[in-house]
Amino acid sequence: MAQSKGNKAAGKKIKHAALERFMHYYHCLTSPGLWDGDWVTSSRIAYYFNMDDTQVRKDMAQIGVKGMPRQGFKRSEVIESIRHALGLDKRYKAAVVGAGRLGGAIMEYRGYSSYGLEIAAVFDVDPAKLGTTMSGCRIYPTVDIVKVCRIKTVSLGILTCPAEVAQRSADLLVQAGVYAIWNFSTTNLIVPGNVFVRNEHISVGLAELAYFMNRGSGSY
Amino acid sequence: MAQSKGNKAAGKKIKHAALERFMHYYHCLTSPGLWDGDWVTSSRIAYYFNMDDTQVRKDMAQIGVKGMPRQGFKRSEVIESIRHALGLDKRYKAAVVGAGRLGGAIMEYRGYSSYGLEIAAVFDVDPAKLGTTMSGCRIYPTVDIVKVCRIKTVSLGILTCPAEVAQRSADLLVQAGVYAIWNFSTTNLIVPGNVFVRNEHISVGLAELAYFMNRGSGSY
Repeated sequence: MAQSKGNKAAGKKIKHAALERFMHYYHCLTSPGLWDGDWVTSSRIAYYFNMDDTQVRKDMAQIGVKGMPRQGFKRSEVIESIRHALGLDKRYKAAVVGAGRLGGAIMEYRGYSSYGLEIAAVFDVDPAKLGTTMSGCRIYPTVDIVKVCRIKTVSLGILTCPAEVAQRSADLLVQAGVYAIWNFSTTNLIVPGNVFVRNEHISVGLAELAYFMNRGSGSY
Repeated sequence: MAQSKGNKAAGKKIKHAALERFMHYYHCLTSPGLWDGDWVTSSRIAYYFNMDDTQVRKDMAQIGVKGMPRQGFKRSEVIESIRHALGLDKRYKAAVVGAGRLGGAIMEYRGYSSYGLEIAAVFDVDPAKLGTTMSGCRIYPTVDIVKVCRIKTVSLGILTCPAEVAQRSADLLVQAGVYAIWNFSTTNLIVPGNVFVRNEHISVGLAELAYFMNRGSGSY
């Protein structure tokens, strides 16, 4: 689980674990080339995620999707219901702080629009990068975060900068009115309680893998 | 939660949720500049992670760390106990498949050795990259995955390649004897039951953020 904090009340309607399952269903059901036709059974989804098909059927019921005997669920209906339940049909703007390799890799992802996200600006401290573009987005100086984010009505900040400058960048994003931060830097951020943070610490994945490597099949 | 499957039995000793907490404690307690002195209280850790301090004390007890009245826990002892409990003191080798921006960003991370990991090889299909290096690591052709990984006794594969070639690359890694895959590609992999997969789908984070943006503070 990516560690998240802030604004707990806002996430109450769909519980965290269920939310994650819906995200996986959505990702999987919208993946091109994975499905033939428009019908999918709960057992096929369950097999794919190594889970129980009763859980899949309960999840579908929670978002109001009804199955058909011997056919299963209509894939397009499941997708639309998840989009609606998760609010993926809304639109919001994001800014990336850090135009390095990580920022570039994140901007290369082409699926943002299907999550309602548009990247409106990129920030970097390197004077050589200013005024140039990254994935078609203009790079602004980090000192202009507050000004540019306000003008462009940015509501999500994506931190891909080094750990040393992550807190300072987060402060500027919060000052600009951003209310969610997606933190790819390797530091923990301190933000006001109404700001939602999703951390993607590489070290959490690393530690889980190390634990498995140690217990699963020995080490060298 | 990053969705993981395979080799469930191996992960039984520390439950998944507890494992994630230990990873966060470890990351946080080893972060430079965050702590003064060598003592840390359960309430400070609890505050940092927005959780209950009773949970922190229970976790410390689980790995055999005893607190001192009015002083708390010795930070170095907590770090060492987590390293031992999670197997971070063991060593293993990894190979990265995909020498693009994402692969480069992942290789730039300098903390691997503290998780016992050494990146031994990088693979790419682009002939122009072959024989060159990335973060000091030689780039080999993807067709040589089996041969090179066997010679270098690689046990973890890190997939940073495009979704279209991820399954094929995973097949080669499994054939080479890799028993864990860290999947940064946007596809779900099908692997034998004894291979552990940790998925880092960007879309899962995106969907959680979208859900929060929608419910938390409205949308535009």
